[in-house]
Formats: sequence, structure tokens, C-alpha cells
Amino acid sequence: MTVMKSVDPQTRIESLDRDACLRLLAGDEVGRLGVVSGGAPLIFVVNYVLDGADVVFRSDSGTKVDHGMRAPACFEVDGFDRSQRSGWSVLVSGRLEEVTRYNGRLWDRITRLAVQPWASGDKTRWMRLVPTSITGRRVSS
Amino acid sequence: MTVMKSVDPQTRIESLDRDACLRLLAGDEVGRLGVVSGGAPLIFVVNYVLDGADVVFRSDSGTKVDHGMRAPACFEVDGFDRSQRSGWSVLVSGRLEEVTRYNGRLWDRITRLAVQPWASGDKTRWMRLVPTSITGRRVSS
Repeated sequence: MTVMKSVDPQTRIESLDRDACLRLLAGDEVGRLGVVSGGAPLIFVVNYVLDGADVVFRSDSGTKVDHGMRAPACFEVDGFDRSQRSGWSVLVSGRLEEVTRYNGRLWDRITRLAVQPWASGDKTRWMRLVPTSITGRRVSS
Repeated sequence: MTVMKSVDPQTRIESLDRDACLRLLAGDEVGRLGVVSGGAPLIFVVNYVLDGADVVFRSDSGTKVDHGMRAPACFEVDGFDRSQRSGWSVLVSGRLEEVTRYNGRLWDRITRLAVQPWASGDKTRWMRLVPTSITGRRVSS
């Protein structure tokens, strides 16, 4: 199989296609949610799972939910090899939504997903980031 | 020496003090810059060094510089042990500035720092994030 690669000759940065990004997203369980609060960006670490291309995580009431609701948000996962000075990152941009019982089948499906936050606490609110774009890149040594 | 720990009994999340955050920041070389572009958050991976408490990195002209100039920005580093379901993260919030020759001594000092981006390219612009807050937390199993 021929794999098409898009590599910038000046920077050696390879652009990853959507399928490659989704495989990388599916292969991890912890990533970083970006939201905007009062005009400033904030980054939170969250445990997540994928539901199709949606990023699903649980939250308590608080900053992530209150500032992010239906607001633009992004989600980033990455992996590095510091000794090789190489790595990849994937960025999902979209809108953050809370999923509730009123969402019916979506609620049933989402709440059966195995999202296990490392931190304790109730984490009773289920959030999903619905992507409008998924981009990724890789830098190799 | 007694180390004061602030641990939330419900979530088991330990708050890290500023010194602990700066040690963790000083111990890594790759982190994530958060900026706001058109009202939406973006996260970029960058190689960095610390200059005091300032986060210094190099950039080409482009999104990071153009959207972030003198704008609110944040910077995140973290470390996880997935098998132990434990980890830490540090978040620096502040304003992003470009450092140029007109900054005199600051330029001289900054441009002697060993910031070696993994990606190729000129990366001729030197940026620093001047913190207004530095917070960190750790989740242990």
C-alpha cells in the first residue's frame, strides 16, 4: 500500500491525515482540553475516550464545563521521544457540548463508554467535543 | 524538612506550589502553548526553556506569533504514568511578547538560551510568555 505523505521540505514537519489523527486519538486515554475564559486560553488535562470522532470526557461542575459550554474548544494529544527529538501531535477543534438524559440514545451510548477519570470525585457531567477540524503533524529526526 | 501538601480529600488532587511548578517546568523541554484565535482556543507544541519564570521559545512568523502577540496565552507541561493512573500538570498563564533586538540586554540574554526546536526552519523570532499565574496539580493513585 502506498501511503501518501505530506512533508514540508523546510521544516521536516509531516502533516497527518484525518484517519491517522483518529488512530492516534483512539490510542491514548489522556489529553488536553483548551477553552477560552474571559478572553484568555486555559488548558486542562482530562481522561477521554472517542465516540466516533467526538472526544468524550466526564467533568464535575466547574471551570471546564461552565466556561466551555457550547463554546469553541480544542483538544490535543501528543507523543514525544525526547532522545530522538521527534514526536507527533493531534489537535481537534470544535464545540463543547454537555450530554444529558434529554439526549436519549446519545446519552445511553455515551454513558456506557469506559471513561475513568484518574482523579476521584463524582464527575457526573458528560461532555463531548464535536469536531469541526482534526489536524495532526509529526516531526521526525 | 516538612513539605506542606494541599490535597483535596474528595478528588485526591494535590495542588503544587509555585516552586514545585517551576522545578517541573525547568525539568522538561517540550510543552504546549495555548492561544486564542478568532475567539477559539488553539494548542501548539513548542520546545522551550525557562528564563527565570518566563517561558521562552522560538517561532517562525505564523499563527503562534500573529495571534498571540501581547495577547493572553498559556503554557502547559505535564507528565503521566498511565499504568499507575497518576500524573501532574503545570499551567502558566500570562501574556505573550516578542523579544527583539530593541530589548537590548533582554535580547542578549534570551538569544543565548539553548532553545533548539525539533522542527527545522529559521525560527528567527523569539517569544516569551510572562506569567501572571503559575498553578499545578498532581493526581496520585
